[in-house]
Amino acid sequence: MVVVMAPEATQEDVNAIVQLVQAAGGEAFVSRGVSRTIVGLVGDVDEFGALNLRSRAGVVDVVRISVPYKLVSREHHRNRSVIRVGGVPIGPDTMTVIAGPCAVETAEQTLTAARMAKAAGASLLRGGAFKPRTSPYAYQGLGEAGLKILAEVSAETGLPVVTEVIDPASVELVASYADMLQVGTRNMQNFALLQAVGSAAKPVLLKRGMSATVEEWLMAAEYIAQRGNLDIVLCERGIRTFETGTRNTLDISAVPVAQRLSHLPVIVDPSHSGGRRDLVVPLTRAAIAVGADGVIIDIHPEPKLALCDGDQALVDSDIRELASVAAHLPPLVGRTLPPPGPAQPGAGAAPARAATAVS
Amino acid sequence: MVVVMAPEATQEDVNAIVQLVQAAGGEAFVSRGVSRTIVGLVGDVDEFGALNLRSRAGVVDVVRISVPYKLVSREHHRNRSVIRVGGVPIGPDTMTVIAGPCAVETAEQTLTAARMAKAAGASLLRGGAFKPRTSPYAYQGLGEAGLKILAEVSAETGLPVVTEVIDPASVELVASYADMLQVGTRNMQNFALLQAVGSAAKPVLLKRGMSATVEEWLMAAEYIAQRGNLDIVLCERGIRTFETGTRNTLDISAVPVAQRLSHLPVIVDPSHSGGRRDLVVPLTRAAIAVGADGVIIDIHPEPKLALCDGDQALVDSDIRELASVAAHLPPLVGRTLPPPGPAQPGAGAAPARAATAVS
Amino acid sequence: MVVVMAPEATQEDVNAIVQLVQAAGGEAFVSRGVSRTIVGLVGDVDEFGALNLRSRAGVVDVVRISVPYKLVSREHHRNRSVIRVGGVPIGPDTMTVIAGPCAVETAEQTLTAARMAKAAGASLLRGGAFKPRTSPYAYQGLGEAGLKILAEVSAETGLPVVTEVIDPASVELVASYADMLQVGTRNMQNFALLQAVGSAAKPVLLKRGMSATVEEWLMAAEYIAQRGNLDIVLCERGIRTFETGTRNTLDISAVPVAQRLSHLPVIVDPSHSGGRRDLVVPLTRAAIAVGADGVIIDIHPEPKLALCDGDQALVDSDIRELASVAAHLPPLVGRTLPPPGPAQPGAGAAPARAATAVS
Amino acid sequence: MVVVMAPEATQEDVNAIVQLVQAAGGEAFVSRGVSRTIVGLVGDVDEFGALNLRSRAGVVDVVRISVPYKLVSREHHRNRSVIRVGGVPIGPDTMTVIAGPCAVETAEQTLTAARMAKAAGASLLRGGAFKPRTSPYAYQGLGEAGLKILAEVSAETGLPVVTEVIDPASVELVASYADMLQVGTRNMQNFALLQAVGSAAKPVLLKRGMSATVEEWLMAAEYIAQRGNLDIVLCERGIRTFETGTRNTLDISAVPVAQRLSHLPVIVDPSHSGGRRDLVVPLTRAAIAVGADGVIIDIHPEPKLALCDGDQALVDSDIRELASVAAHLPPLVGRTLPPPGPAQPGAGAAPARAATAVS
Repeated sequence: MVVVMAPEATQEDVNAIVQLVQAAGGEAFVSRGVSRTIVGLVGDVDEFGALNLRSRAGVVDVVRISVPYKLVSREHHRNRSVIRVGGVPIGPDTMTVIAGPCAVETAEQTLTAARMAKAAGASLLRGGAFKPRTSPYAYQGLGEAGLKILAEVSAETGLPVVTEVIDPASVELVASYADMLQVGTRNMQNFALLQAVGSAAKPVLLKRGMSATVEEWLMAAEYIAQRGNLDIVLCERGIRTFETGTRNTLDISAVPVAQRLSHLPVIVDPSHSGGRRDLVVPLTRAAIAVGADGVIIDIHPEPKLALCDGDQALVDSDIRELASVAAHLPPLVGRTLPPPGPAQPGAGAAPARAATAVS
Repeated sequence: MVVVMAPEATQEDVNAIVQLVQAAGGEAFVSRGVSRTIVGLVGDVDEFGALNLRSRAGVVDVVRISVPYKLVSREHHRNRSVIRVGGVPIGPDTMTVIAGPCAVETAEQTLTAARMAKAAGASLLRGGAFKPRTSPYAYQGLGEAGLKILAEVSAETGLPVVTEVIDPASVELVASYADMLQVGTRNMQNFALLQAVGSAAKPVLLKRGMSATVEEWLMAAEYIAQRGNLDIVLCERGIRTFETGTRNTLDISAVPVAQRLSHLPVIVDPSHSGGRRDLVVPLTRAAIAVGADGVIIDIHPEPKLALCDGDQALVDSDIRELASVAAHLPPLVGRTLPPPGPAQPGAGAAPARAATAVS
Repeated sequence: MVVVMAPEATQEDVNAIVQLVQAAGGEAFVSRGVSRTIVGLVGDVDEFGALNLRSRAGVVDVVRISVPYKLVSREHHRNRSVIRVGGVPIGPDTMTVIAGPCAVETAEQTLTAARMAKAAGASLLRGGAFKPRTSPYAYQGLGEAGLKILAEVSAETGLPVVTEVIDPASVELVASYADMLQVGTRNMQNFALLQAVGSAAKPVLLKRGMSATVEEWLMAAEYIAQRGNLDIVLCERGIRTFETGTRNTLDISAVPVAQRLSHLPVIVDPSHSGGRRDLVVPLTRAAIAVGADGVIIDIHPEPKLALCDGDQALVDSDIRELASVAAHLPPLVGRTLPPPGPAQPGAGAAPARAATAVS
Repeated sequence: MVVVMAPEATQEDVNAIVQLVQAAGGEAFVSRGVSRTIVGLVGDVDEFGALNLRSRAGVVDVVRISVPYKLVSREHHRNRSVIRVGGVPIGPDTMTVIAGPCAVETAEQTLTAARMAKAAGASLLRGGAFKPRTSPYAYQGLGEAGLKILAEVSAETGLPVVTEVIDPASVELVASYADMLQVGTRNMQNFALLQAVGSAAKPVLLKRGMSATVEEWLMAAEYIAQRGNLDIVLCERGIRTFETGTRNTLDISAVPVAQRLSHLPVIVDPSHSGGRRDLVVPLTRAAIAVGADGVIIDIHPEPKLALCDGDQALVDSDIRELASVAAHLPPLVGRTLPPPGPAQPGAGAAPARAATAVS
């Protein structure tokens, strides 16, 4: 941490800072320039944070140097992590495809979408039972009935399930059906929810907030990690900018940037980034090429009838193209595609648990 | 709603749209241009939304024309609303000052801050007991103990209390102490929370999401209104932009824009917008001059010791300036400053209720 | 300047930095922490900039501390400047209104608009002869014919003229007619143009780039100042954000922020910020209240017929309201409205010069 | 174009719009809804633009439907264009690498960088002689001496030259040396410059403005095309957002979006987007995978000594990695890497011309 003094700061002002820092158990190094003096602090940054140095006489700025997250930082955990979801790995050696319908509508639609997902190379099934929607008049999801459909389709296809949770109160319910809990972009700083999934015994997919910096995203992950759950996968899904040609602006650079700062896997959502079906395959290619650890894609058997985000869902004719990309591109960046669903017979664990939970 | 056809769209494509719209109970007017054809739709927009027109053959764009919120819209409710908080009005004829500490730390600090608030012209007391913080290592608030302090200080000073609620599960608890429930910027699209405060019997202060458009903000208010609670005050608190000289960018234009679209009162938070103490009074002047129905301001007896956002808190020497602004500027825009606290003797209602609730 | 070393940086890495800095004539202070070491630099920042310290072994970040502009900085020029345009002051004691048509279309339209401007309290006339337009198919201005109209209207009304210059090659021509040269938002980093107006003997109105930080804006001003012209007025005109309800987002905080960093006057353009006629008067009130040194406003006798930005032009019925605001609000913030045009008879200097120049 | 009427608009208001449109030679189709009426316009959009419909009584909004650019639009030019630079193609079948130093500093540095560029797979040489810099105190380039160096290095290596022009007055000079004229991000709306390069007989590389929408970018290209020069290549170089972890945010989606709207080639600048050397290769991979027609990359023999943007320049050790990417990735997306420089002996045309020009 560095304290920048004003040009008019007095010797007393500087001394006061030094004493405060020392009283807090730190060390302070003074660099006196022609027009300004700066003070370098060494010690516990959290302690210094409580000193409100910015409000002290003669201080114009306080510049933080170390990262404000610890458990998810790569600083003390050089190797990148592998997270397993119902046995399927997400990490530095694989390129994991998660696919399925934006919203679960019927058992049939979900099963058909899951089969399309599998054909496209997916090893995990996505699908929303609880939908956070900007308008209260938009489709809000099937709730627990949707979770049951997901569990059944998972049992049928062998694909573990990723689904969103939007409320601390329903974390336990969702966790009883799902293999991975998704926290959506609008909830990235819903701290009560972060703490709740941090206490759940399931891996978490944390979408980046639509106006969150990479640092804030990692601090949101830190909230989950702090409760003891380090099975976190980060998902870049586009940020909000002035550009209106796409629904959001995919921040493709965020993938290598976050991977450098954190040991957690980072995947990309090409469907919600662009918000346009014609961009999904190109953005998937870009995501694989940049080094993402996976992608999560909207698929719908009949987008024209979709109750949610039909404009961005892939249809049958796109599946072959996606399958080809998923098969050919990952090896070029040193990655393999995980097999669809867990290999061992006992893989049905998650659906089994779900079945128990709902009986 | 208008459907824009592609240049290469066929007559059949256009007919298909017309038939879909008619089947949904609407009317479709076709305008055929040299290079493009457009179809104007008349009828129930929600019905049309479910048609996924954008995914139909030959369609390149669908442009929404009507506003997607109803209850909070000014379209069918021309007069601007007055919301009363513990008897204090917020609306078109008044300029209401809400002030207090960012976070409740001790009874003494809160009482001192409340007295400063009153001296500055405030008629409502703000103070956070539950704090949503970007970092899990930052101060998280006193919780219920903080609510008790607020209730005591309210009883002592006669100032009704505005405080934040961050979790659906604690709405009832907070509502038992507070006169107004604040939903913070990070929770503007926490739909479970919006529905919970929509069911509470207390007015709600809805801060704008830091990257929310005015339209999305009004849709968030619609979530609250839909549950039966129309006592909503909107609060502009700065949006996220590329500028780093201020903590956020105060979108001062959002005040008249939102007032034109909605009948709800709109206030401004000059403390969190700028994030700098030196900007609070200038931005308060701007807020009053632009026509805001109120301001909400951070005050702390000793910002150097503040556990939260000390850099932006006003101190004693600023209070006189704020008091002068609050006294002299509102009359120029045809407004009065409400008296500090409810006039009638029974004004202690909220603290009384709180006292009951905690016994 | 502070150099932040990586956790894995070696003693040699740190020594190398110290030696580089000393070789460049500076001093380096090393602060060694538990996880990181930082080096504080004292000396000539420009020299250090050439060292490419960020590329050195073991360096993760270089943090600049001093401001990168000098001539326009308030650091060595505490008193705020007063700039005179044809005798009319713009500075800390006045609140100067500049008004007129977005584009000069005819002599009659310009004269009528100038009279409306005067009635509204303006002491300077704005009007565009060269128009930078996003589309090549939009109206591009009258060119020199427009400058002549402006000079005639100025002679007739006594209002000095502010007009835009869009090309280094036409600076001399425009300066021969105008009293103040405007550099538009799209040209804020047109460095050839900045240097050209820096060499002209007329004051400059420098609009903020629509995505420029305050710091970049001041550096653009520094380009002008460096050529010897310190008669610069800064103009905040809205920045580009995600919000689509207004044409741009007026960054009202930029006024006090820029005034604190620079001694130059700062005015506001409420017309182009909002892009909506109904926002012009409210935003003008906000600008005066926040402490702006002036405003620049679009006026048109018949906005429906305007060839440029008719949607935001004030009309006759708005003029009384603007006049009232301009008369009553400035005194409340300790300012006066300059009289319309220079008091002395010889005020027609600029048009006179123009007449000479074009003969 | 669609005109949206206010709920309170009268029949006369609607009739007035219809008559205006008809008087301008267009047709108007009225769609009368329950709460609103809309009018669809058919005819010449430019004509309608002059009607200022938004200012008419009863009108709340005017929605543009057709694209405002014509010559560069793909609407009437379905096949994507191939632009040739000194014989080297940039278009849909190739993946062209442009590389070289950010700034030309010395003949030796430029030659070494050009050889590195060639080794990396480049067929065109970039290098700046005129540098637009945010600070007037930063290195501004060698000017004509730099152009001469570029011409010599081009003759030596056979690589045609791309270099920036920052001023209409120097277009002729730069065009006499260079094979392609670059218009930088800060000049994307410098209309005088756009018109000047539109009249030059050399292809143009048009960088996207850092806060320009794709539509504004295409309108800037239209300015060039309107002067008769359709040899334009678009370059995405990152946009300005709130994220501070990268210098700019690479808008990777803009590549397919612009390619769908325009027939012009679109390339990517991974160096200036990220502003970090460690991101250049990952972003290059992403650019190729998304379907870019080329990339433009900063290379410097000794970044630590670079006078401009040394932090993002690739060095020797990165060249092999880039060469491998350039060799292996394009075939996967159906593209080939053009050979380094024109094959035929007469390829030295551009330098030859340059030699003439400077003698």
